[in-house]
Amino acid sequence: IVVAIYCGQFKIGLCQLSVTSEKNQNLVCARNSIKAAVECGARLVVLPEMWNCPYSNDYFAKFAEDFENEDASPTFSMLSEAACSHGITIVGGSVPESSDGRLYNTSCVFGPDGKLKAKHRKIHLFDIEIPGDITFKESDFFAAGDKPTIVDTDVGRIGIGICHDIRFPELAALYRAKGARIICYPGAFNISTGELLWEVMQRARAADNQLFVATCSPSRDSSGSYAIWGHSTLVGPSGEIIATSGHEETVVVAEIDYSKIELQRKGLPLDKQKRADIYLS
Amino acid sequence: IVVAIYCGQFKIGLCQLSVTSEKNQNLVCARNSIKAAVECGARLVVLPEMWNCPYSNDYFAKFAEDFENEDASPTFSMLSEAACSHGITIVGGSVPESSDGRLYNTSCVFGPDGKLKAKHRKIHLFDIEIPGDITFKESDFFAAGDKPTIVDTDVGRIGIGICHDIRFPELAALYRAKGARIICYPGAFNISTGELLWEVMQRARAADNQLFVATCSPSRDSSGSYAIWGHSTLVGPSGEIIATSGHEETVVVAEIDYSKIELQRKGLPLDKQKRADIYLS
Repeated sequence: IVVAIYCGQFKIGLCQLSVTSEKNQNLVCARNSIKAAVECGARLVVLPEMWNCPYSNDYFAKFAEDFENEDASPTFSMLSEAACSHGITIVGGSVPESSDGRLYNTSCVFGPDGKLKAKHRKIHLFDIEIPGDITFKESDFFAAGDKPTIVDTDVGRIGIGICHDIRFPELAALYRAKGARIICYPGAFNISTGELLWEVMQRARAADNQLFVATCSPSRDSSGSYAIWGHSTLVGPSGEIIATSGHEETVVVAEIDYSKIELQRKGLPLDKQKRADIYLS
Repeated sequence: IVVAIYCGQFKIGLCQLSVTSEKNQNLVCARNSIKAAVECGARLVVLPEMWNCPYSNDYFAKFAEDFENEDASPTFSMLSEAACSHGITIVGGSVPESSDGRLYNTSCVFGPDGKLKAKHRKIHLFDIEIPGDITFKESDFFAAGDKPTIVDTDVGRIGIGICHDIRFPELAALYRAKGARIICYPGAFNISTGELLWEVMQRARAADNQLFVATCSPSRDSSGSYAIWGHSTLVGPSGEIIATSGHEETVVVAEIDYSKIELQRKGLPLDKQKRADIYLS
């Protein structure tokens, strides 16, 4: 018997994970967190950016896996198994991917049958150098992805971005134009830019495009060199925060109701109000 | 003797005005507020959206002026005189403009010589109908402007938007592309959308485009049918709030330092990180 479940209303789980330098421990931790989210009713689970590996160049290459060789990829296998055994959709945060001698910061999306449905490679690498505040150059370690990722799942059409991808309104607008109803951004904003902009960016992307935005971050690790902001959040299509967390290890479970999108777009038809003729002048 | 003043650092004044149903009183109030801002050192003064006229269809036509007939426009005359006598630039908020039998929601920009430098007619009219929350249809009263407004002043290149114009990231991106260093949005967000999004929109437009955003609102009028949010604000190019107000009648005076723009764009070169090739796919 196939049960068709109406996916207009469902629960999302955001697994704000504590990341260690032991990959196996990270896998176990993630697997347990996914289970906890499912037990709270989540049918879509999102993991953080770089959750199987410390956010440090000392680990990226060592922890990287080649997803083409699924059997040799414990991360791929765990996510596939978790999605299948729970019958849920997983946006697998991001992990270092090794492919053709390059490293990518990559998010894999799995369906309830355990199959890989999409793979997003972080498009906008985080290169920043603000004297006295923060310096980081992700392009020293990673190659950039070169395509947007939209995936049809049993909980609707999802756009994927990773962390710094959220700073580019063009990507969110593209996902909205292509019919995404939620954009998932696994991210690992640091304390500096996180406190300033993490919430603003999420809410602006959601409000401008009148869709849901879900973010998932690692929890803060006071021992690491890169202090994570945390605050995994679900934002609704009016730009309202539906659920969020602090910086500790947390599973955020919240309800998504897609009818809010139609309501908001009908009441305030931003798309019809746009003046493409003017923006091109 | 002509003194060339370096305009990289200067003070801006945001006149959060109390608006009454007496136009003359509004003009006097605005004139006094401009003077107060200048006495605090402001060289650029921004007025609110619809500051000479209550935000109500009962008043728009009655209070409207035809700027083509400058001598018969007390609002035009006052702004011109104030700019000239103080030797400052004024972004004159917005007032109802009557032109060719139509009404527009229009902002006039005056230079230190008292001359009109630019005129922005609100492009995106605020039509909203959220049951149980807010219903408003600005297009019932006003015709829409049909062009963006960028103006070179002695305090730099300024882009102008009015209130709902801030909800459209495309307009801000256009202004950034054309070299604006500050976008001024006179606005009159109401309590409902104001509390939710006024700050988010300002900070997102500033952070995404790495420029200054200045907003100016009327103060809250508990007696009116349209309750104003207030909170006139200056945001810097990292998305940080430099100065803001509550909802009462206020003059916000704050310093703008354009070197912050270069610092932010150099440290985090969002423009170079953009992937136009991908957004068009």
